[in-house]
Amino acid sequence: MLFFGGDYNPEQWPAEIWEEDVALMRRAGVNIATVGVFSWSNLEPERGRYEFGWLDRVMDLLHDGGIRVALATPTASPPPWFSLAHPEALPVNADGVRLTHGSRDTYCVSSPAYRTAAREIAGRLAERYAHHPALAMWHVHNEYGTDCRCDVTAAAFRTWLRKRHGSLDALNESWTTAFWSQRYSAWEQIAPPRATQYLPNPAHALDFRRFLSDELLGGYIEQRDLLRAANPGVPVTTNFVQGGWVSVDHARWAEEVDVVAVDHYPDDTGPGAEEETAFAADLARGWGGGSWLLMETGPNLIYTRGRMHAKEPGRLTAHSLSYVARGSRGAMYFQWRQPRGGAELFHSALVPHAGPDTPVFREAVALGRTLKNLSDVSESDPPAASVAVTWDAPSWWALQAPGLPSADIDYLGAVRQAHRALFRAKLQTDFVFPGVSTGLGDYAMIVVPHLYLVSDEAAAAFRDYVADGGHLLVTYLSGIAEPDTRIRLGGYPGAFREILGVRVVEWHPQAPGTPITLDDGLTANRWIERVETAGAETISLYADGPLAGAPAITRNRYGAGSAWYVSTGLTDDSLETLLRRVAAAAGVEPVLSGLPSEVEAVRRGDRLFLFNHGTAPATVGDIVVPGGGVRIRSAVEGPAVGRG
Amino acid sequence: MLFFGGDYNPEQWPAEIWEEDVALMRRAGVNIATVGVFSWSNLEPERGRYEFGWLDRVMDLLHDGGIRVALATPTASPPPWFSLAHPEALPVNADGVRLTHGSRDTYCVSSPAYRTAAREIAGRLAERYAHHPALAMWHVHNEYGTDCRCDVTAAAFRTWLRKRHGSLDALNESWTTAFWSQRYSAWEQIAPPRATQYLPNPAHALDFRRFLSDELLGGYIEQRDLLRAANPGVPVTTNFVQGGWVSVDHARWAEEVDVVAVDHYPDDTGPGAEEETAFAADLARGWGGGSWLLMETGPNLIYTRGRMHAKEPGRLTAHSLSYVARGSRGAMYFQWRQPRGGAELFHSALVPHAGPDTPVFREAVALGRTLKNLSDVSESDPPAASVAVTWDAPSWWALQAPGLPSADIDYLGAVRQAHRALFRAKLQTDFVFPGVSTGLGDYAMIVVPHLYLVSDEAAAAFRDYVADGGHLLVTYLSGIAEPDTRIRLGGYPGAFREILGVRVVEWHPQAPGTPITLDDGLTANRWIERVETAGAETISLYADGPLAGAPAITRNRYGAGSAWYVSTGLTDDSLETLLRRVAAAAGVEPVLSGLPSEVEAVRRGDRLFLFNHGTAPATVGDIVVPGGGVRIRSAVEGPAVGRG
Amino acid sequence: MLFFGGDYNPEQWPAEIWEEDVALMRRAGVNIATVGVFSWSNLEPERGRYEFGWLDRVMDLLHDGGIRVALATPTASPPPWFSLAHPEALPVNADGVRLTHGSRDTYCVSSPAYRTAAREIAGRLAERYAHHPALAMWHVHNEYGTDCRCDVTAAAFRTWLRKRHGSLDALNESWTTAFWSQRYSAWEQIAPPRATQYLPNPAHALDFRRFLSDELLGGYIEQRDLLRAANPGVPVTTNFVQGGWVSVDHARWAEEVDVVAVDHYPDDTGPGAEEETAFAADLARGWGGGSWLLMETGPNLIYTRGRMHAKEPGRLTAHSLSYVARGSRGAMYFQWRQPRGGAELFHSALVPHAGPDTPVFREAVALGRTLKNLSDVSESDPPAASVAVTWDAPSWWALQAPGLPSADIDYLGAVRQAHRALFRAKLQTDFVFPGVSTGLGDYAMIVVPHLYLVSDEAAAAFRDYVADGGHLLVTYLSGIAEPDTRIRLGGYPGAFREILGVRVVEWHPQAPGTPITLDDGLTANRWIERVETAGAETISLYADGPLAGAPAITRNRYGAGSAWYVSTGLTDDSLETLLRRVAAAAGVEPVLSGLPSEVEAVRRGDRLFLFNHGTAPATVGDIVVPGGGVRIRSAVEGPAVGRG
Repeated sequence: MLFFGGDYNPEQWPAEIWEEDVALMRRAGVNIATVGVFSWSNLEPERGRYEFGWLDRVMDLLHDGGIRVALATPTASPPPWFSLAHPEALPVNADGVRLTHGSRDTYCVSSPAYRTAAREIAGRLAERYAHHPALAMWHVHNEYGTDCRCDVTAAAFRTWLRKRHGSLDALNESWTTAFWSQRYSAWEQIAPPRATQYLPNPAHALDFRRFLSDELLGGYIEQRDLLRAANPGVPVTTNFVQGGWVSVDHARWAEEVDVVAVDHYPDDTGPGAEEETAFAADLARGWGGGSWLLMETGPNLIYTRGRMHAKEPGRLTAHSLSYVARGSRGAMYFQWRQPRGGAELFHSALVPHAGPDTPVFREAVALGRTLKNLSDVSESDPPAASVAVTWDAPSWWALQAPGLPSADIDYLGAVRQAHRALFRAKLQTDFVFPGVSTGLGDYAMIVVPHLYLVSDEAAAAFRDYVADGGHLLVTYLSGIAEPDTRIRLGGYPGAFREILGVRVVEWHPQAPGTPITLDDGLTANRWIERVETAGAETISLYADGPLAGAPAITRNRYGAGSAWYVSTGLTDDSLETLLRRVAAAAGVEPVLSGLPSEVEAVRRGDRLFLFNHGTAPATVGDIVVPGGGVRIRSAVEGPAVGRG
Repeated sequence: MLFFGGDYNPEQWPAEIWEEDVALMRRAGVNIATVGVFSWSNLEPERGRYEFGWLDRVMDLLHDGGIRVALATPTASPPPWFSLAHPEALPVNADGVRLTHGSRDTYCVSSPAYRTAAREIAGRLAERYAHHPALAMWHVHNEYGTDCRCDVTAAAFRTWLRKRHGSLDALNESWTTAFWSQRYSAWEQIAPPRATQYLPNPAHALDFRRFLSDELLGGYIEQRDLLRAANPGVPVTTNFVQGGWVSVDHARWAEEVDVVAVDHYPDDTGPGAEEETAFAADLARGWGGGSWLLMETGPNLIYTRGRMHAKEPGRLTAHSLSYVARGSRGAMYFQWRQPRGGAELFHSALVPHAGPDTPVFREAVALGRTLKNLSDVSESDPPAASVAVTWDAPSWWALQAPGLPSADIDYLGAVRQAHRALFRAKLQTDFVFPGVSTGLGDYAMIVVPHLYLVSDEAAAAFRDYVADGGHLLVTYLSGIAEPDTRIRLGGYPGAFREILGVRVVEWHPQAPGTPITLDDGLTANRWIERVETAGAETISLYADGPLAGAPAITRNRYGAGSAWYVSTGLTDDSLETLLRRVAAAAGVEPVLSGLPSEVEAVRRGDRLFLFNHGTAPATVGDIVVPGGGVRIRSAVEGPAVGRG
Repeated sequence: MLFFGGDYNPEQWPAEIWEEDVALMRRAGVNIATVGVFSWSNLEPERGRYEFGWLDRVMDLLHDGGIRVALATPTASPPPWFSLAHPEALPVNADGVRLTHGSRDTYCVSSPAYRTAAREIAGRLAERYAHHPALAMWHVHNEYGTDCRCDVTAAAFRTWLRKRHGSLDALNESWTTAFWSQRYSAWEQIAPPRATQYLPNPAHALDFRRFLSDELLGGYIEQRDLLRAANPGVPVTTNFVQGGWVSVDHARWAEEVDVVAVDHYPDDTGPGAEEETAFAADLARGWGGGSWLLMETGPNLIYTRGRMHAKEPGRLTAHSLSYVARGSRGAMYFQWRQPRGGAELFHSALVPHAGPDTPVFREAVALGRTLKNLSDVSESDPPAASVAVTWDAPSWWALQAPGLPSADIDYLGAVRQAHRALFRAKLQTDFVFPGVSTGLGDYAMIVVPHLYLVSDEAAAAFRDYVADGGHLLVTYLSGIAEPDTRIRLGGYPGAFREILGVRVVEWHPQAPGTPITLDDGLTANRWIERVETAGAETISLYADGPLAGAPAITRNRYGAGSAWYVSTGLTDDSLETLLRRVAAAAGVEPVLSGLPSEVEAVRRGDRLFLFNHGTAPATVGDIVVPGGGVRIRSAVEGPAVGRG
């Protein structure tokens, strides 16, 4: 069965509406509802006074309607009474401003009072609903990711640092505190990064981000264990959020959830929305080891550049099926019914303000039927890929520090671009996580964009991978530093110098508008480097600019494999051209040969999904896919996948 | 008599200058001076020690010179000694930062210490000057509009909320606090909106803005009552400020002043300055029920886009006469003499740094003569209009919330645009205030831009208006919510669905640069909607974009009248075209037929004012108006005004 | 001997590296190392526990290698233990946020605890190293310039104000506190400018900046005296920083240092880098009365518009020699070896991450040889100039106030532009400092850009200068106010009205993009004025815009000299044209006649330095200077310099 449904907030509506809700859900084929995500103040309106009656009734109503429940613990938003009683548990920002209640997520995860209250309400829910027949899974909290710099957090941070570094001497060494007289002589001298005079220490900043991720994870695990104890048969998860600012290292978190659940809201309205959807799904699948669940997306909304874009007819369907094709166990939305008030009153919903007699609800009904017909796909294997891209949250964070050589450095952008180029080249792609596990899988080709931080172990794994015949493509800003941000000396890209057979002696960041041309016609921007080859052969030279005539792209034969180095920021088209070339060398073939450029093809189990992102009909073999449409087939033959 | 004068701050100058001031004022025909606006620290240099001698002398000097006085209470700027003694009366911003003395307006209006001190100084002034022969009116405070989020304000806010909502249950319901676990279980849990983690609750934000307006009004009323008691014969007012950020609901405040006094500084240097002047004057006249007074404008200055623009020769005259033609009881300026120091040392003045031998002072002298010749106009009726535009401060505030469908929503811009289109169509326009009074007057045509919040009573008034034969034009984003911001369900534009005969099921905000074309050639941008007609006839269709072929503008016959709906953001020219068409249907005629496009005509009483905003001479009948000039006639015949 | 070297931070590296450092320094010809700038936490890791062993060893190693030491007191960055023990000594910003340790410069210079600790560590260093044979000079602190608004600072500010103004009445008068009810009745009411409601008082803001400069200077003098006492033979200095935001008045500070040492980082990558280099050097030479030392620049880095620009080959050499040619006693860099971590880990270095086998180190080695060959130049006279430009830090600060007529006013930009135009006209230029000394030297021509604040004494000096035959060119925004910011009444440019023979009655700031043309073809932007001549002859008229036909540039014969007034913002080319014309009238000749436009020539002592900033070879007499290259000659004849 594929899940179909989403966030349901009955507490926002009079009870009269609930039966209509269930009836409409049944009409749409909804089979799961996420309930209770922000219900704390309705479940426990005063400290210790619980009101479970309404939830009992909702759980029963849903159960009677054949709809299962992902029951949330409501700990992402403590009620007003909690904040009034525990002002010390309100988060403090870097300027020392203590935030106030009035939105959501106003808690400090290190606060003992908050932790106690969170365990208490989670425990009550576990006690009451762990064996409710409607219960399909536990949904702990919501989109973990808050930040706090208060003194309680400071103490927790110091505890974490002691464990990580062992001694102050080791910390001083690791953080290079000799710079700017920052050497600590007692643990008490260390606090979270807060407002200071000038540039912060990047190692301090990065360790704090690692700490925050771990601290939030501790809050999650506490609840998970308690819920699991109440009924070990019910899976526990929390919804990971993908996007431009993420506070936690999902690749690490994935080890602690029973199913990787992801919230994804694309932020581009053009073809970028589909490319982002594929990216999000492939990354989520990587975290989930092949399996995952789309927990939230906007039914009729892409929020982009300051405004909401209403999805074109069919796009809700196309996005939903793309997630499913790429391994999701279903398609779920925020939210069921658009609210009359509250901060997100214009966030789209399956049942909008105008009611069910609307395009979005009609499309949802049709989509419900489609997903029902695809039920068996939930049992089948996820798409198989011969190409992988690396993902590393700490490298991302480290490349958000001030004081970098260029304000244009964009880790997320670089990874998305690598994935986008592979997507356009019709190459099914996985993700690997060298910061979490040195395992690199059985891929024919691995693309390494901006992997700034690399441990010795990870570097060795890449070396072995190439030596054993793998094809590696590394971009600039990779291998620069150890995981604690200390630079690897002797020439960039430190950790990869040997396998790439190059030594970079100078960086030349370029303004984004400055065009760069290579001698083979490829184009680039943002960055060039003075590369000295040391064994590698030069593939392309810079044709203009301050490094005209010097190597831009190189390839090094190393053992049974080869390692490519790209020292510049290739444009989308040029990166696609280069990756197609590397793929050909690696023997990697597209999902389906001869695909029209506007058609996306994904193979999951024995199904082939064909998405036409153009407006005119497209033909794939004997199949005609209408503009904006999707076609799913079982029988079409495609090429084998795996290391070519 | 028409007032001519402005802010006079003798305390900034040695006493030697005062006699020169009076002599220059007489030369210029100045007949009123606003005195004492920021004089607190000079009137009461230490707590309880008063220095009235200088003011006595100034009042007498002005009186001897035949110049009347608008005497201000100086409560907008408490002296340094007050702030030092009462740090708790300094305002606190949303981040919890307590502001300090060092500018002006550094007080919290809810502070008991501030209120006491303000009553005290106002009382002293009343006692001493209420029967001074120079006293023409009391000018309470200055441009009420400060904001404070301190704990004292919080308590006052809660008192206001109790009165507005009656019970916590009602407040929870009205604010939809079920969203994001915001349900309050005790009044103490509620505070002003302050720094919080993410989006605020829009109902909370809007109620706080309403509270602030009422709280400031309470401060005003306290002073007004005390001044009125000292001499009931002297009118009391305070200067309303018009502009892009306004904290109070002037339409409500207008009920509490004896004359509506307005500060207006246009912020555009081109023809927009004249259009803004007309807008400001027409809106002020609406607040004043036909009568008002321009209390401040810049003699030689338009501050725009980061710099001061010196007004072209004649423009001071043209602006001043436009205010008068549109009902002002005079023309007053900030300020008389440009100061040597202080924060606004470059703000323009009638007597600039360079002294009276300057273009601005010479123009002022000529203007004084013109206004003297127009004395009788002050007794005549204001301009009569057959068209009205709606104005509603709470809708403006509600449309400034974060979380709206588009960051480009601009209530003030939409109202200004409607007025501008009518101005260009030479249609004299009034304003009506459906949020304050459901009375819609005897207009042939009413334009309703972005009237986001509409009560049931107001909706009924519009229904009756159309049923009785009125012509109504409603734009998108109108009728969406109840006054507490809760959405009206079932399809937009909720409150107006029935009379408009349409149902909108989906909004499609557009980037400002995306052009939109209708099938009749009208053009638009920013916004389109999926409109379903339900009785209305379609006037224009979308010719391109995602809604091509769907209705864009509709008209519904309803009772004896008709109601037009505009679902998109028409460009200026297109809106003017449409409004001319509606006006023709409504039988509304321009102020004067056959006017050249660059000429503005206003009829006040038996005078016809003709403003030539072009640079070349323009001919109107037998009158030649020089470029940039004004001509005033008594005898020219024009069309009748009133419902056509 | 010319100094060659830079900041050396051995504490960031294991001791094994130190000998390699000295060997590499010797290879490069380094003869001076700045040591200890940020070493406090390594020298005094806990309060009262000192670790001098490593520094002893470093001093000895350098001495053994023949390298002298500029030994720094490390007081710019107190250690973490200090901040933890003295939170009250952490700086507080204008919002009342107390900054935290975590960067550098986190101290309040008014804090007694900080002052004591700073004297203590400086005293220990003096005691230990004042007679060390390697010691070449003391380098106190680093780039003084921090800002604090705490209550301790407030008390110090009041003490300073009492001394400056004598009485509260005088302060109230000087600050025009009658404006906005700011009159103070007790000193306690005055605090530093902090977050307030609206515009601050500009006199308050300016006095606070003057105070900060003096307060920091007090901190410097305290250390200087202590170091001097330990060994009167060792010169003491501190490094002045040049750039866009500067908190201290270097012209005043220069009187307190034994050698003016300057940090300069150009922020433009094109020819602007060379023009800025010349500007910085000429200004530094002015401060130093002819002699100065480049203490820091970036070896291989221009940080511009958000990214680092790697210097083109040869540019390190060209910049370094330009500083030397313009009087620097050497060329020093930040820093010797690029660090592995810390906030500035990507700041360029002579030995970069990639090591000595790099272009930058190779160029440094060659440069070291060149500087050695130029040793004698350090004894020769600095370049002589017949033209001077005025510089006045308080005018700069005053023109950074809010509330000015235009946000585009840019004091630094105007002074740089004047210098740049003279640079392009090949006229060697000095600086004079009318705010510090009324002496105007023996220049044939003085250019006065935006000298907003002018004392009566300075005005008299300019009057005498012109009367005695000098040629003066004054731009708009000069002479406007007294040094306390009070406007000079009667018409702009107040202090210069008489000698210029003009009276300006109105300012017309223009948007930067609005082109302005004069009748003689010169072009301008940003600003025009209504100028009335009163004795002056009109040189150019406005050809377009609101002041078409009115005077734009005037010249007044006054005594034996002449005074030009420029009422508009001339473009670079037009200003150069005008200045060439004035120079011709003043008999000033270029450094060398017939120079190609891309060649910069500087004469120091008997050496002529020729810099080719173009890419193609350029010919000067019989000398061919390669593109991007420098040629130094002793024998080339050039024109005499001095008043023509």
